[in-house]
Amino acid sequence: VTVGAGAVLEGVHRHVEAAGLELAVDLAARGTATIGGMIATNAGGTRVLRHGSMRAQVLGVEAVLGDGSIVSHLGGLLKDNTGYDLAGLLCGSEGTLGIVTRARLRLVPSLPERVVVLVGTADLDAAIACFVAARDGAPSLEAAEVVFADGIDLVCAHLGLAAPFPAPQPVALLLECRGRTDPTAELLDALSPVADRIGATAVADSAARGRELWRYREAHTEAINAVGIPHKLDVTLPLREMASFRVRVRDAVASVAPHARTYLFGHLGDGNIHVNVVAPRRGAAVPDVVDGVVLELVAAAGGSISAEHGIGTAKRSYLRLARSDAEIAAFRRVKAAMDPSGILNPNVLFPQ
Amino acid sequence: VTVGAGAVLEGVHRHVEAAGLELAVDLAARGTATIGGMIATNAGGTRVLRHGSMRAQVLGVEAVLGDGSIVSHLGGLLKDNTGYDLAGLLCGSEGTLGIVTRARLRLVPSLPERVVVLVGTADLDAAIACFVAARDGAPSLEAAEVVFADGIDLVCAHLGLAAPFPAPQPVALLLECRGRTDPTAELLDALSPVADRIGATAVADSAARGRELWRYREAHTEAINAVGIPHKLDVTLPLREMASFRVRVRDAVASVAPHARTYLFGHLGDGNIHVNVVAPRRGAAVPDVVDGVVLELVAAAGGSISAEHGIGTAKRSYLRLARSDAEIAAFRRVKAAMDPSGILNPNVLFPQ
Repeated sequence: VTVGAGAVLEGVHRHVEAAGLELAVDLAARGTATIGGMIATNAGGTRVLRHGSMRAQVLGVEAVLGDGSIVSHLGGLLKDNTGYDLAGLLCGSEGTLGIVTRARLRLVPSLPERVVVLVGTADLDAAIACFVAARDGAPSLEAAEVVFADGIDLVCAHLGLAAPFPAPQPVALLLECRGRTDPTAELLDALSPVADRIGATAVADSAARGRELWRYREAHTEAINAVGIPHKLDVTLPLREMASFRVRVRDAVASVAPHARTYLFGHLGDGNIHVNVVAPRRGAAVPDVVDGVVLELVAAAGGSISAEHGIGTAKRSYLRLARSDAEIAAFRRVKAAMDPSGILNPNVLFPQ
Repeated sequence: VTVGAGAVLEGVHRHVEAAGLELAVDLAARGTATIGGMIATNAGGTRVLRHGSMRAQVLGVEAVLGDGSIVSHLGGLLKDNTGYDLAGLLCGSEGTLGIVTRARLRLVPSLPERVVVLVGTADLDAAIACFVAARDGAPSLEAAEVVFADGIDLVCAHLGLAAPFPAPQPVALLLECRGRTDPTAELLDALSPVADRIGATAVADSAARGRELWRYREAHTEAINAVGIPHKLDVTLPLREMASFRVRVRDAVASVAPHARTYLFGHLGDGNIHVNVVAPRRGAAVPDVVDGVVLELVAAAGGSISAEHGIGTAKRSYLRLARSDAEIAAFRRVKAAMDPSGILNPNVLFPQ
């Protein structure tokens, strides 16, 4: 499909579903996220595990570069190696190289059968073991999201929902599989070798129940925003580092902001964790030093300081945690090549 | 996995299979193709349909840029938006921007069950209808390759193989599905709505038979090379244009090289057709004008003049068929940014 950069994700979903197709990127902010913004940040979301991020969907763009020239490559071919991948370069460039005006996006067939399962576990390592079993045993796996008891409590209080499990579980892993035929048996079979790691299981027996289970995950942002204005740090961690990171990040935040609460949730399937640090009392701000404390832990663990939100202004002073001087110098040369006057989004990405 | 650029694809396949994993790009030249060359050309091959091309597998590279600086980003995270995608930019740049020395590649779980089906049809439109039915009905579809009777005859004569079907079929579509469980029923069910378009079906009942069916496709290059030195043109076409292109390309080649034979085969799943024009008599060369005749037809049909081999030296004078002056100017600025002295592979890609 060819869409304007201002098209909102939810509208694109509706537009293409009539043809039995889907855009394979989806995210909780689908009602406000524009295609142009999703390209600028190389948006990820809940289906990256199976389909890749926005860059993997963008077959070509029309864009205005910094010198005013217009490039356009909207043929939509799956294999096309005629010069440099300008579309891929613009994707994730945060508006610093060009202004994307239209995009040609890959679509995938809509798979009619789905199952959503919420698995409760005693700890994060057990949730990771369940995810790995699902990933390796169920090719139909589309999403693997993780939330924790404190976040679930917040969501339940905010929305007036019942708890998802009869007995509380410290960690909850949401798994969604989709297929041409019902993928329930494939997913449950894949989980059977790790049955002893599972404390509780909720299997959605209807589409409505599936949406309810997703609410425990997707309402996190809204529920946390209701507490206060959070510092949001979108990071990726290697799976093997995730459990120890969770302990260390809480300790580190407590050392600089003892009054703050730290909520973690995110896309376990690709290691993408949203760290939300929020002060629960009005007027009790979270000090900015928290950002550096968290991002240094991420970098030390071999993670990425930006998973799917980009560097923007908030993280530009931390880019050197993630990239070498040689890389940043190469970025600057590419920036100068595409935007010689430096007029495009000049205050993001690069360290001051 | 992190591999050196000189690693050969087949060796990488063997190395990772011990972990139950696979590199998702595969191609007939697996015994000689190096990872560095596959990155330089953004190689495609037989599994792009399901897994994307080389760029989709490359999570990061180590490379020496034209100014001697070394960039390295080998952390291997699935979501990582910290600056420009240098790895994706180097991928498909044909050695003009940097020399890739190492790469971090995404792997996928090895799916143990597979089925290979060769479908014979009366014409290309029927083969396309079968492919579309398989693509939309069988999420386990990995490969959809097309060959024609003249190419099959050549392969059979060259290798001493029996014909694949009891009665000759003008077109043959090779479909491969892979899954955790046997995907045979899923594929055959997906094909049932187009049963009236199918003239013959060969279903591999063993892995050995599956490899035999693949030989009809993969031995095309070897069998054609045995006839003479072919002009090889690797192109992509929109599916809706493919049948008429096949007629037009044979007519057009006949008009400039009446003694030549034109063999088509390739990756139907992503529209990637290999056009091979060869003179069957020793000393009867195919005139170079054939290249332009074929590529102009491709461009007029909305196709790509290079699917998975890049522009190289052979197609540099045709780049303007595929890219606008503004795009080529942007390419030149990127080239100057990464290789200011113009020392890296200076004779490829750009028009003279």
